[in-house]
Amino acid sequence: MSGDSKMVLDGSATALAEDETEFVRNAAGRLVPTVVNGVPQVPFLGVGKYRPEGRKAAPPVRSAADYPEDGDKRVADIETALHKCGIRDGMTISSHHHLRDGDRVALEVLQTAGRMGVKNLRWFPSASFPAQAPVIELMKSGVVHHIEGSMNGPLGDYCTQGNMAGLGVLRSHGGRFQAIQDGEVHIDIAVIAAPSADMFGNADGSHGKSACGSLGFALADSMYADRVIVVTDNLVQFPCVPWQIQGNNVDYVVEVPSIGDPAKIVSGTTQITRSPDRLRISELVAHFMKASGILRNGLSFQAGAGGIALAFVQYLKPMMKEAGIKASFVRGGSTKYLVEMLEEGLTEYILDGQTFDLDAVRSIASNPRHVATSPFTSYNYHGKGNFASMVDACILGATEVDVNFNANVVTHSDGRLLHGIGGWQNCLASRCTILALPAFRDRIPVVVDEVTTLTGPGELIDVVVTERGICINPRRTDLIESVKDSELPVLDIRELKKEVETICGGIPEKTKPSDQPVAVVKWVDGTVLDTVWKTY
Amino acid sequence: MSGDSKMVLDGSATALAEDETEFVRNAAGRLVPTVVNGVPQVPFLGVGKYRPEGRKAAPPVRSAADYPEDGDKRVADIETALHKCGIRDGMTISSHHHLRDGDRVALEVLQTAGRMGVKNLRWFPSASFPAQAPVIELMKSGVVHHIEGSMNGPLGDYCTQGNMAGLGVLRSHGGRFQAIQDGEVHIDIAVIAAPSADMFGNADGSHGKSACGSLGFALADSMYADRVIVVTDNLVQFPCVPWQIQGNNVDYVVEVPSIGDPAKIVSGTTQITRSPDRLRISELVAHFMKASGILRNGLSFQAGAGGIALAFVQYLKPMMKEAGIKASFVRGGSTKYLVEMLEEGLTEYILDGQTFDLDAVRSIASNPRHVATSPFTSYNYHGKGNFASMVDACILGATEVDVNFNANVVTHSDGRLLHGIGGWQNCLASRCTILALPAFRDRIPVVVDEVTTLTGPGELIDVVVTERGICINPRRTDLIESVKDSELPVLDIRELKKEVETICGGIPEKTKPSDQPVAVVKWVDGTVLDTVWKTY
Repeated sequence: MSGDSKMVLDGSATALAEDETEFVRNAAGRLVPTVVNGVPQVPFLGVGKYRPEGRKAAPPVRSAADYPEDGDKRVADIETALHKCGIRDGMTISSHHHLRDGDRVALEVLQTAGRMGVKNLRWFPSASFPAQAPVIELMKSGVVHHIEGSMNGPLGDYCTQGNMAGLGVLRSHGGRFQAIQDGEVHIDIAVIAAPSADMFGNADGSHGKSACGSLGFALADSMYADRVIVVTDNLVQFPCVPWQIQGNNVDYVVEVPSIGDPAKIVSGTTQITRSPDRLRISELVAHFMKASGILRNGLSFQAGAGGIALAFVQYLKPMMKEAGIKASFVRGGSTKYLVEMLEEGLTEYILDGQTFDLDAVRSIASNPRHVATSPFTSYNYHGKGNFASMVDACILGATEVDVNFNANVVTHSDGRLLHGIGGWQNCLASRCTILALPAFRDRIPVVVDEVTTLTGPGELIDVVVTERGICINPRRTDLIESVKDSELPVLDIRELKKEVETICGGIPEKTKPSDQPVAVVKWVDGTVLDTVWKTY
Repeated sequence: MSGDSKMVLDGSATALAEDETEFVRNAAGRLVPTVVNGVPQVPFLGVGKYRPEGRKAAPPVRSAADYPEDGDKRVADIETALHKCGIRDGMTISSHHHLRDGDRVALEVLQTAGRMGVKNLRWFPSASFPAQAPVIELMKSGVVHHIEGSMNGPLGDYCTQGNMAGLGVLRSHGGRFQAIQDGEVHIDIAVIAAPSADMFGNADGSHGKSACGSLGFALADSMYADRVIVVTDNLVQFPCVPWQIQGNNVDYVVEVPSIGDPAKIVSGTTQITRSPDRLRISELVAHFMKASGILRNGLSFQAGAGGIALAFVQYLKPMMKEAGIKASFVRGGSTKYLVEMLEEGLTEYILDGQTFDLDAVRSIASNPRHVATSPFTSYNYHGKGNFASMVDACILGATEVDVNFNANVVTHSDGRLLHGIGGWQNCLASRCTILALPAFRDRIPVVVDEVTTLTGPGELIDVVVTERGICINPRRTDLIESVKDSELPVLDIRELKKEVETICGGIPEKTKPSDQPVAVVKWVDGTVLDTVWKTY
């Protein structure tokens, strides 16, 4: 899997249905293709079983003699930059999603390539969002061949309809770094939307009218792509400090009036859930952490920006204060609630992967203890360790969890692909992974016999907390022992499943999936964990 | 020159004298070997002429499965770490010199390797210092085969005596990064002495009892070496922030009582020259910058920690204040005097390559506008540009300068190799390179017909300022024009030479160099600029 693999793009939208894709059952019992978009794959071998060989991807050696002596790498516009980067058919273009649904740059780049007459691009975003739905038109017209990267909403739906000319490849944030680092995905041109940048290409996300906080998702792209374009709406005097993206990796700088819609880049304020059931889940998680002894001085945890996770932080804080406890670090997705912890002295550091609201952006821009991280430091499984496995507890969501604690975060029970993996898979490495989720949604049970799409192996999921009780993975006898004298509502996951099915009036009938693959889910080590099938 | 070149180490101390080294005259007219330590070389082709081919060095892909889940990479001692790194005969061991003459780690590592019975190591320090003179014993006993890296003082002298079993290879700071990045030098084991580190290997230089400021010289080693050991005397709780060296590149952490002698790591205070002649040089440089129009709002400059450079800053400051001028950035070697500029609002930023005194260490540890840089950002010629060419003026020293403005910084006029190149070659890229030096030393003229060792091509040296007047390179008609109406003592460099020879009582007779090469001087692009010959 290492080395400079070449994607096969034949330009035919029907290639997939017709080709002779072979499938094998991997160590999780899932049927996965042995070749994806022309690249041979290793099926999932089990957690921690696969060992990579070979050396990291090696970008071309450049010479300063070919760059402006005065450091001014600005060119007129995106088209000029793409032209100077030598854009041509079949190339891989990458972008990051720190601007979330407010991003205007990635779509503009792909549309510009289309106007330039380029075809069969592989778009390799760290994630795509509903605002980028017009990429569907570019796929129909052949400008974009297919997308590799999280597809949130309409683009995922389009993929599950079997309409993409290549297989979608879903990777975690760490898996994306791994794939680039290992040479599994070679980026020809990386386009980095930057809330601040100087003419040399040093760039940062924490300042400017389009500030988004950390730019860590773009780090691998800046390091390994053949050519790198920085696009900014806030050109600052050299040096742009801090320079999370270093100009020494950047070829061209483009100044534009706007890189995105600030209102959709960060929330004004992130919202805590108001649902009584979900508040109960959050409270149970906090009580579980106390009863199990995880809540101790120097602890570390990660909680995302979802309503349940935010409420959990609010329950945890008074417990910490009461016990006189301080965290050594908390990991974001950062929000107002983590910033309050930092400012109230409840944590030494925020180690931030992405920055979700205005308070968090202000904090990362001004507080040296609010530190921007990247998938390299936090998640890359093919590094010399990463931060994820050093986190005491991680509170995550899921669309489904099965009786063996396997979980799904990418598809719904109807098979539609509507969510990316994000850092979710990477976080499973934490010392205690807690899925905090409602037992059912829209009268559809969340606890099931078998997940629609396996995104996380059950052996890594330690606890499932629902409004109807707490299920502990039988492998974690230590956790079971630690809470056995508590008053927590602990129950067997099969009991929970039965209870939920009774409430929902039985198990909803599942549509049998088709035999046409539309996407694969990669594991953190680059092996293939599962296949997403055409649903319509 | 790219790719994974293999050093030839035959263990024979006489190999060099006997082998059939071929020599060619390079574009500077200097006789240079075509093969150095078994590796074929490109002779210097002229400034900006050589274009590298191929791809960067690619370190092995690792797996987090092979590192401790709890992030604790500590091992008992240096010997254990070297053993776990698989140390064996003929390997390349690297170290950095941020601890300067106070370093205790590099020597300890090499001596430990010796006790373990290892032979023929290539020691690849970013620079070596007098405190490391005992490496001579290790070379005599065959533990260390030869040194590639700056050799200050006794080690350089030992080299010029023709006693090293391999050729010395002298590189600038940027050239060292380039050589590692391009795969010209493959580091098997990097040892990084760290004033602060956590158990995961995140490390920084700005805190701790052995604080030294920036750790930038170790960056390339941490990124490209097969194995990386961090040695610290100040183990902090995870996360060690900032983490100029990232733990994700580190294999093992060793805690020791002391990494060095603080008194020799940083000066209590750096000393301005008291010599009237040298003060006059400093003053002339400041006046030249004013008269030539370089001293304008938003200027940038680099001045090192030498007595003349420090005095220059003190002359410049009142001029800046009077004119209401603020620098956009100044580059260190940082000292108290640059810190004062930052704190008095005379510069927006200090971009710091190495940190020389206590005030500078305090500043880099606490002021976000005092930014640690590395040879990657500042000097690497095989990147997408670097900061050095964006600096308006650079004030440097030299041991000799000739009538064509070629300069020498590594040998004395007697041919003895006593100094490293440092960032000197890289700084020649600045918009105005000023050599500020006395016209003679110990009655030996500094201005000569031809330099003993060519370290910097004359076409890049714009101005020579001595106590006896200012010589402007005839190529810089713009600078000549800019000061022609000033009262500055501008004179032709040949006139200056004559004047100096009169004072010194003629040209001292030079010993004819031997025909035995002992070291080569690399240019910033990895080509061979000159040869250092045996002198005794």
